[in-house]
Amino acid sequence: MSGNTIGTLFCVTSFGESHGPAIGCVVDGCPPGLPISAADIQADLDRRRPGTSRHVTQRREPDQVEILSGVFAGMTTGTPIALLIRNQDQRSKDYAEIATTFRPGHADYVYLQKYGLRDPRGGGRSSARETAVRVAAGAIARKWLAERHGVAICGWLSRLGPIDIPFVAREDIAGNPFFAPNATIVPQLEDYMDRLRKAGDSVGALLTVSASGVPPGWGQPVYDRLDAQIAYAMMSINAVKGVEIGAGFASVEQKGSEHGDEMTPQGFLSNHAGGVLGGISSGQEIIVRLAVKPTSSIRLPRRSIDVHGQPMIVETHGRHDPCVGLRATPVAEAMLALVLIDLALRHRAQCADVRCLTPRLAGHLPDVPGK
Amino acid sequence: MSGNTIGTLFCVTSFGESHGPAIGCVVDGCPPGLPISAADIQADLDRRRPGTSRHVTQRREPDQVEILSGVFAGMTTGTPIALLIRNQDQRSKDYAEIATTFRPGHADYVYLQKYGLRDPRGGGRSSARETAVRVAAGAIARKWLAERHGVAICGWLSRLGPIDIPFVAREDIAGNPFFAPNATIVPQLEDYMDRLRKAGDSVGALLTVSASGVPPGWGQPVYDRLDAQIAYAMMSINAVKGVEIGAGFASVEQKGSEHGDEMTPQGFLSNHAGGVLGGISSGQEIIVRLAVKPTSSIRLPRRSIDVHGQPMIVETHGRHDPCVGLRATPVAEAMLALVLIDLALRHRAQCADVRCLTPRLAGHLPDVPGK
Amino acid sequence: MSGNTIGTLFCVTSFGESHGPAIGCVVDGCPPGLPISAADIQADLDRRRPGTSRHVTQRREPDQVEILSGVFAGMTTGTPIALLIRNQDQRSKDYAEIATTFRPGHADYVYLQKYGLRDPRGGGRSSARETAVRVAAGAIARKWLAERHGVAICGWLSRLGPIDIPFVAREDIAGNPFFAPNATIVPQLEDYMDRLRKAGDSVGALLTVSASGVPPGWGQPVYDRLDAQIAYAMMSINAVKGVEIGAGFASVEQKGSEHGDEMTPQGFLSNHAGGVLGGISSGQEIIVRLAVKPTSSIRLPRRSIDVHGQPMIVETHGRHDPCVGLRATPVAEAMLALVLIDLALRHRAQCADVRCLTPRLAGHLPDVPGK
Amino acid sequence: MSGNTIGTLFCVTSFGESHGPAIGCVVDGCPPGLPISAADIQADLDRRRPGTSRHVTQRREPDQVEILSGVFAGMTTGTPIALLIRNQDQRSKDYAEIATTFRPGHADYVYLQKYGLRDPRGGGRSSARETAVRVAAGAIARKWLAERHGVAICGWLSRLGPIDIPFVAREDIAGNPFFAPNATIVPQLEDYMDRLRKAGDSVGALLTVSASGVPPGWGQPVYDRLDAQIAYAMMSINAVKGVEIGAGFASVEQKGSEHGDEMTPQGFLSNHAGGVLGGISSGQEIIVRLAVKPTSSIRLPRRSIDVHGQPMIVETHGRHDPCVGLRATPVAEAMLALVLIDLALRHRAQCADVRCLTPRLAGHLPDVPGK
Repeated sequence: MSGNTIGTLFCVTSFGESHGPAIGCVVDGCPPGLPISAADIQADLDRRRPGTSRHVTQRREPDQVEILSGVFAGMTTGTPIALLIRNQDQRSKDYAEIATTFRPGHADYVYLQKYGLRDPRGGGRSSARETAVRVAAGAIARKWLAERHGVAICGWLSRLGPIDIPFVAREDIAGNPFFAPNATIVPQLEDYMDRLRKAGDSVGALLTVSASGVPPGWGQPVYDRLDAQIAYAMMSINAVKGVEIGAGFASVEQKGSEHGDEMTPQGFLSNHAGGVLGGISSGQEIIVRLAVKPTSSIRLPRRSIDVHGQPMIVETHGRHDPCVGLRATPVAEAMLALVLIDLALRHRAQCADVRCLTPRLAGHLPDVPGK
Repeated sequence: MSGNTIGTLFCVTSFGESHGPAIGCVVDGCPPGLPISAADIQADLDRRRPGTSRHVTQRREPDQVEILSGVFAGMTTGTPIALLIRNQDQRSKDYAEIATTFRPGHADYVYLQKYGLRDPRGGGRSSARETAVRVAAGAIARKWLAERHGVAICGWLSRLGPIDIPFVAREDIAGNPFFAPNATIVPQLEDYMDRLRKAGDSVGALLTVSASGVPPGWGQPVYDRLDAQIAYAMMSINAVKGVEIGAGFASVEQKGSEHGDEMTPQGFLSNHAGGVLGGISSGQEIIVRLAVKPTSSIRLPRRSIDVHGQPMIVETHGRHDPCVGLRATPVAEAMLALVLIDLALRHRAQCADVRCLTPRLAGHLPDVPGK
Repeated sequence: MSGNTIGTLFCVTSFGESHGPAIGCVVDGCPPGLPISAADIQADLDRRRPGTSRHVTQRREPDQVEILSGVFAGMTTGTPIALLIRNQDQRSKDYAEIATTFRPGHADYVYLQKYGLRDPRGGGRSSARETAVRVAAGAIARKWLAERHGVAICGWLSRLGPIDIPFVAREDIAGNPFFAPNATIVPQLEDYMDRLRKAGDSVGALLTVSASGVPPGWGQPVYDRLDAQIAYAMMSINAVKGVEIGAGFASVEQKGSEHGDEMTPQGFLSNHAGGVLGGISSGQEIIVRLAVKPTSSIRLPRRSIDVHGQPMIVETHGRHDPCVGLRATPVAEAMLALVLIDLALRHRAQCADVRCLTPRLAGHLPDVPGK
Repeated sequence: MSGNTIGTLFCVTSFGESHGPAIGCVVDGCPPGLPISAADIQADLDRRRPGTSRHVTQRREPDQVEILSGVFAGMTTGTPIALLIRNQDQRSKDYAEIATTFRPGHADYVYLQKYGLRDPRGGGRSSARETAVRVAAGAIARKWLAERHGVAICGWLSRLGPIDIPFVAREDIAGNPFFAPNATIVPQLEDYMDRLRKAGDSVGALLTVSASGVPPGWGQPVYDRLDAQIAYAMMSINAVKGVEIGAGFASVEQKGSEHGDEMTPQGFLSNHAGGVLGGISSGQEIIVRLAVKPTSSIRLPRRSIDVHGQPMIVETHGRHDPCVGLRATPVAEAMLALVLIDLALRHRAQCADVRCLTPRLAGHLPDVPGK
């Protein structure tokens, strides 16, 4: 309840600073009997890991996870699963000067105002490094969702600054460091990023995340709706400034006769709802989009103040991602997984005995995944 | 924790169905000593009330609130405040046929799948009627925020379907049934709504909500961030499909050198952050925008299925808002108030003893409220 | 989270003051499809109702409950169930003087210190009148526990001040106003109470509550153990000063060779554990005992202070129970029901898929219910 | 919410198994600016540590704590504090046979029934080893309570099986391995324990814990009362079977004219309430007593069943405390500290602005600490 725990029944409590000894989390409430290993978690961590291409921060962190508890003989036991990732490549000297100044767009100023003191090394707790533990916890959630319900979660880059990225194929996503579902556009993205990095600037990004296979019924009206929980989880990711579900902001200009997804015995005829009706999953694919702002740490000079309130100029020369949105895709997937498992457990807590006589719609027509 | 309570310390637990005996809520955790009366709450309720213009539902509900507890001699006592609103104008016969069919875009199908049964009268729990209790609870929150911290919350209509509504003046908002901050554009809106109503269709809307006077420091990183809680609260409103803070989705195309708000001793030089940095209020105006989908209940025929899974055609002839976004403005204001008071209390719980030596930035330059 | 809600998944949020317009609660999280009516709830309320014998307070409250939401066509719908009980027989004039004085043993002084103001009418929120809503909410929980799992909850009076009450038969409990499981001892209890009432004094009581039919597995280690939740729930009842499970305080003098309940294929050979091992139900009968202090409101003169800190003498002449323990039995039963349903739902949330190969112990030998 | 977190605002999330790689916790919500070091925490851990006398388990664990986050430059930063204790002296072979059998009085059987599988090494999660993390977290809470409010928490042994231990002096407590407030009785206790150990049996204990210096006003009525939270916290400690506050079970036989603590301008005249009225601290010393059952692991043969439900005989030869109550004193102190800090923060969240005109009672007469 103090801000570092997400979830009601599948609870992730996160800890750690960017340049402290370690980051990690405790995952409480995982169903017992789920096969899980450090390797399962590592696979997801590696997708988010820094230093894997020239387009992301060059900090070298192996992000190797250790399972401290809650797993015995390769299976979850139902007790808390503690995950530990030791920090390795802290260059705190890079950040010496920021201890007394505030970087525009950063949390430096507000942390000091809130807490009266702060850990300035690498942004401390406000660093996006914390998102590694979300990915680690999310890996456990994903595994359960996949094995128990056949839910598949997938995220991709839909826009990089000025470049719109048409969806071509899910298979393309893993083949480039941008998570672009479009192999053809990759050279254009690389060229853009190279120029951006040289200019010392940064840029925003638009991500899409989808979940297919979610059965109807997940989501707790009226406040803890599935879409409300998704909005919360996504907006809690560093640098995210907007979240939309299904038609999202486009629904402002839609008529009701266009937006409302018609139903037939064969399935829904469209998916403007993005898989959520009345805060409850409909059985359609869940579609979420999020806006990621440009990285605040840039080499270009910016006006700011120091801790005494005096004006000064900030130029940030540490190792940073020119587009934080690039590595945010696995994070967004993880957050969606955390929301879904929590609501799945809450649903069966209340409704395990429900038998609905109306058949579930088999699917939707046309099945246009994530577009 | 079961979905009908919002807030950690200032908790609102909502109940009631559209056509049941009553709706209401329990507000727990309100600071003692706040002067409050039914009239204070009624003022906000009247802004959301149905039947006040030809552009909204013609259901006639006085929405008269009764305070059942928690107030003595005109002051809050610190104990739970129960608020009761009796339903008066239920015409459940209007909804007889929907008991066995599913209206496209509605929660009918998912409620049945989730719970195995549902109260079909007027949409039951999924009706936007529930938002009246949000407004009632929010009125208490707003009063405390205003009296204790000088926080002012204001919402308005920024777009009605195809019609963009340039912000002119806050003073204009109260003078029209659209909450438009622009008196000149009102005839155009009225004309549009008249034609829409006659066509039997509905349309979406874009709302903006702002809070000024929020001190720096509110928001609990890393999950219960101010912006994450706002996203959750807004997305929990019926028909909302998207939420953005500050520059929001526009930040996707921004460079870091543009987006990051520079700071001077006189204040911030811009407000792309929308008043939130690292999940904590910065002292700047908080700016939120939300996309409201078109009302699902329309007179036009729509394909659907019945409870046996058989195909049929739905035409909805009850009394409905052709644009639910119109009456959503007071609801969005209330939700922002609920988020802010909760985080204000959580902040002082942890940080009441904090003394920050760095002066707070006096304001921001230029001060462009809510635009 | 603000103190007036109990439960994680089956949540009861209580409101109301002794002499305000009403008391009531919102029950959120109830499984859908449970048949429930006001009459079901009324039956339990009537057992706790004041004014039913000369041994309890003579306040005349019908305690008639109205269901405001969450039930449709006689079944719970899964949405919040609001319960309302209007107060009828407030004689606030009886309490005029206590507005400026503090009754020894009462919450008057601490409410004022905590909140800075208080509703003095009939003790306001601190009155045991609030326990009526626990009974009402508990009635729903009991019904589900009985129908879904065959759980039977039963409480009785084990000691009235100096009089120990040997357990004879459950059938005796309903036949006397003391909830004594022993018809023979009733005249002795009546005589004692008559003399106590005439003396203007009050006395304490020892209650026992049991639950049979609870399957093994309920309880969330390590903090939210079944016994920890029971202790919390019982100690939250007005006037309760002690709680013990199974052998309880007697286990201090036991040897391990005596206390540990041996197991055979036919069942446990004793029940010193009181049905809880490691914080989890064992399948044995759950046995709880609670100590209820004597009523603080007595006619005898007592030294105290007034709101200005000046010394004075208090004599309390309102209508009070000479032994609050007498009417606490249905309350304790209700609290046990609330704890059990919440942990039942939490258990199936996490462990619905568990299949344990070890057979459940069929029962325990000897089966000595509640003694 | 999944059972391994305690607290609403000062939240401790615990993890770890007796013979896994590590135990530890995340402390979230600690006020910033509190000076804290590993040494501060170690002092309390050393009081609970195994292997420090012949009367406790001979397992050799240094219980050395590492602070992984949330502390910078010797001060808490307001972000989560992760504490890690590596397990060192696991002799899992001692426990090989218990993997297939159930020890009477242990959680073996119920863990298997609940989760379908279990970590049998050293009792896994159900081992009292988990209480080390409570002590570590409690050390932070105690420091804040002492520095911010002058609260002093102290626990002691009041009875060892048949031996009542009259309270003599707090100064005596630290001078013996029993936490006995009575130096004279120590040889008698040693003799008793030596004989008990040789007999291969175990025994129960009665502990008292007190807190002085708590201001009036802490505790959230009506469910999250101070006494209810204490009961919960104490009953959550392994082997505790009963909790009482103030007069506790003795109040059953008291008259109201005896129990109710009279008040004078100089203070309360007695403390039967144990420092809690109406669930709120009164400013008097808080007095809690808890009953600890005898250790379940004994050398004497006991009847039980194996995982196939077949009868067998269990003799437990691992390293165990013959009286778990002995090392429970620092644990009970820690739990009281955790409850108090949480309610202190919750109190100031809601009531930080309260100014009560009635003076606080200066103290109580006679001041009989903890007896």
